[in-house]
Amino acid sequence: MNKHISEKVINRLTLYHCILQDFISRGTQHISSKQIATLLHIDDSQVRKDINLLNNSGKSRVGYIVKDLKKSIETTLGFAKTKKAFIIGAGNLGMALAKYDNFTSYGLNIIGLFDNDKSKIGAKINSKPIMDINDLQKFTKEQGVEIAILTVPGEFAQKTAEHIINANIKYIWNFTPTVLDVPSDVQVWNENLMGNFLQFTYTI
Amino acid sequence: MNKHISEKVINRLTLYHCILQDFISRGTQHISSKQIATLLHIDDSQVRKDINLLNNSGKSRVGYIVKDLKKSIETTLGFAKTKKAFIIGAGNLGMALAKYDNFTSYGLNIIGLFDNDKSKIGAKINSKPIMDINDLQKFTKEQGVEIAILTVPGEFAQKTAEHIINANIKYIWNFTPTVLDVPSDVQVWNENLMGNFLQFTYTI
Repeated sequence: MNKHISEKVINRLTLYHCILQDFISRGTQHISSKQIATLLHIDDSQVRKDINLLNNSGKSRVGYIVKDLKKSIETTLGFAKTKKAFIIGAGNLGMALAKYDNFTSYGLNIIGLFDNDKSKIGAKINSKPIMDINDLQKFTKEQGVEIAILTVPGEFAQKTAEHIINANIKYIWNFTPTVLDVPSDVQVWNENLMGNFLQFTYTI
Repeated sequence: MNKHISEKVINRLTLYHCILQDFISRGTQHISSKQIATLLHIDDSQVRKDINLLNNSGKSRVGYIVKDLKKSIETTLGFAKTKKAFIIGAGNLGMALAKYDNFTSYGLNIIGLFDNDKSKIGAKINSKPIMDINDLQKFTKEQGVEIAILTVPGEFAQKTAEHIINANIKYIWNFTPTVLDVPSDVQVWNENLMGNFLQFTYTI
């Protein structure tokens, strides 16, 4: 699958996926583009256009077949290919993300958390162990982890990022409000909550 | 300020703002577009183009004046206009957001949290009280709150959203993995963490 799908389309497809999961849990078998569009307050021609990008065959007279459409989104967005990740920072945000079971169904396998707080190390959150940050390099290598989810307080972000990079992790999902200074072979995705908020409230 | 600024530009400007805050805390007075661009792994012509959208006069021979540029971003993005919000759900995510002091400097004033767990009601997180969800309507009216930040578990999201709407709150920042069914006069911003993650990892 090398067809280019834009960020906005990926974003909408994951929202459709949420809706489809909800329909499945309620036992509904069919869904129309209009139903999806109404829930998201967008145009149903947009929904049809997005769905046409998928190799989706599950269309019937009464609408899309919910299970087939969900499967098509998963195949297209590559959920099947599981990625392993560690959460760095077992504070409230790290714990919230560790408890977020939804990640697994999207192919993100969070294996454990790391912290430097001795009182937390050894505990488990949602069956995931909290480990000593000094063991990061060892466990990264042993378990073949590619992604670090960074949730430490902003003032420790840069130093912790350097620790992550030393452990040979090349992808950092950065939840801290700090822009990280990293080598060019390391990719950082800034989960810029304030930027998102301002996009939302810009017109209020 | 009615000049239209695209979502991508807003997003970048808030990242520049993070960098500027960091430079100020280190006592640095000047910054070049190249320095910003290098940290974000983007082109410096892009940075200059974005900054040209601001009414920024603080440019000197040695670069932009950090404090002036920060101020220009704040004026343009309207941080000055403070918005009041409640967090609905005092779980790990709600607590993490309540502790995130950075919000205040962006004009988001989180006044308190609401939960239905009697053992949490009455406590304080980062000086913000946890209140009884049954009192939401009363406090919303008394304090003129416009925004609800929804952080309850997915299975309670729709029911809680209805409670929020009954309290006459028109803006919901939705952190749950559920697409909410709301009337057309209510605006929902889906903080679609999975969508963001998939945009990031789509090419890995």
